Amino acid sequence: MKDKRVENIQIHKVGSDKMDEVADKVAVEEPLQIQLLYSTATGQMLKDIAVTMRTPGNDEELAAGFLFTEGIIKDPQAINEIKRSHSDENIVQVVLKENIIPALGNAARNFYTTSSCGVCGKASIDAINTVSVFAAGKDNLLINASLLYHLQDTIKEQQQVFEDTGGIHASALFDCGGKFILLREDVGRHNALDKIIGAALMKNELPLNGCLLFLSGRASFELVQKAVMAGVKMIAAVGAPSSLAVEMAKENGITLIGFLKSNRFNVYCGKDRINLK
Amino acid sequence: MKDKRVENIQIHKVGSDKMDEVADKVAVEEPLQIQLLYSTATGQMLKDIAVTMRTPGNDEELAAGFLFTEGIIKDPQAINEIKRSHSDENIVQVVLKENIIPALGNAARNFYTTSSCGVCGKASIDAINTVSVFAAGKDNLLINASLLYHLQDTIKEQQQVFEDTGGIHASALFDCGGKFILLREDVGRHNALDKIIGAALMKNELPLNGCLLFLSGRASFELVQKAVMAGVKMIAAVGAPSSLAVEMAKENGITLIGFLKSNRFNVYCGKDRINLK
Repeated sequence: MKDKRVENIQIHKVGSDKMDEVADKVAVEEPLQIQLLYSTATGQMLKDIAVTMRTPGNDEELAAGFLFTEGIIKDPQAINEIKRSHSDENIVQVVLKENIIPALGNAARNFYTTSSCGVCGKASIDAINTVSVFAAGKDNLLINASLLYHLQDTIKEQQQVFEDTGGIHASALFDCGGKFILLREDVGRHNALDKIIGAALMKNELPLNGCLLFLSGRASFELVQKAVMAGVKMIAAVGAPSSLAVEMAKENGITLIGFLKSNRFNVYCGKDRINLK
Repeated sequence: MKDKRVENIQIHKVGSDKMDEVADKVAVEEPLQIQLLYSTATGQMLKDIAVTMRTPGNDEELAAGFLFTEGIIKDPQAINEIKRSHSDENIVQVVLKENIIPALGNAARNFYTTSSCGVCGKASIDAINTVSVFAAGKDNLLINASLLYHLQDTIKEQQQVFEDTGGIHASALFDCGGKFILLREDVGRHNALDKIIGAALMKNELPLNGCLLFLSGRASFELVQKAVMAGVKMIAAVGAPSSLAVEMAKENGITLIGFLKSNRFNVYCGKDRINLK
């Protein structure tokens, strides 16, 4: 069966003063339109919410995850069903349960600049914490450093599209014992994470406060924000975090690991959850 | 002088069963609000256009580049001045010349889904080509493969924030003789490219049809789209392109290079501009 996440193309490889035509593969990128269908006093409303450039596959998870991490739906139980448009496979409709009103004006992204203190990182963090539904609580999470060293061995086995194309991001979940739970790939790293969170939402497994979230690239504010919305407490990224990602993680009591390699890593905050033994 | 693009923090390095506290640096990420000030029949309008999470520095270029690559202003001469808000250094106001009306409803991003064919990559490409102001024309551009092998030596010298933090994207311009023109860094790769294009716009140097555009990461649809808007004809990316990035480049007669290394690279389209000698 053809993998709709990968496209076969002819390219030219240049090296050693020659150019050869060869068959190659690239990661597919296509737009996905997310629509919301919900009831109001005057009848049913169908609203276009967003278009995201994504790698096809797990689109329902992506739509559910996006709506939840952006704060548009606050209740993980709000969704009745997710349908694909009959006429267009790049459109998904998320149908809300009766009496559920989406927080369209309250979406996380709109909050960034409405704080009275102006436009700054602190206001952005406060905005996310206003819409976040999972309260920060005490936990006894502990993960062995040696488990972290080996995470990428598992990731490599699971990253099918990356193996084919070398050009796609991954997000993955592990439990605190290092056991692999789920991996999703996408040309957009925010989409890969929304697919993970959407999958958990659809299986009624939110919050993800007992899991370790793996990110194949850098940790930006946007990714840590989405993790906060899903109640994640531990993040391990292969790349570097930004200043605002570190602040957001600190503010929410998250353990943030960066530059994860097979024998070392950096801890930006929350070091108490790392067990060296 | 303190570099506002870099933040000093204390982190813990873990390796060989020990954890050491050390001083480290991360790339700064802060929101920038872009506002547009323009004249209408009934007086002056001030409109919030977007908030982007960016690394501070060259904010005026970022604002100008964003407005142009998103199709909100179509005339590179449309801008009268760019001011920073007195009250908030994370707000820039782009003031348009009299009689210039911004194409707010026509912004590139809104076009993706308005094609009659539905939501698909082809519609996204057509939408961008509708708003693009620089027509594709004949050219005699030619670049030596050996020059491409050495681009990253120059990039490394210029990437100040990457050297400090290991966590930031770069876009750069070279001429066809391989001469370095300009480099910009940002936690968002789309921002780094908007800064490059905005700088060219402010110096009245658009279109960039005689330049090579270097991208430090992967080549997504969004980046190729912005390059098309600026009239770029050659793109060399360190990472992989997506399927839609390749299609967009093909459709616009762009030479698209990926997986650029010190002795080889892949050509996805437009190989006639590569000289092997």
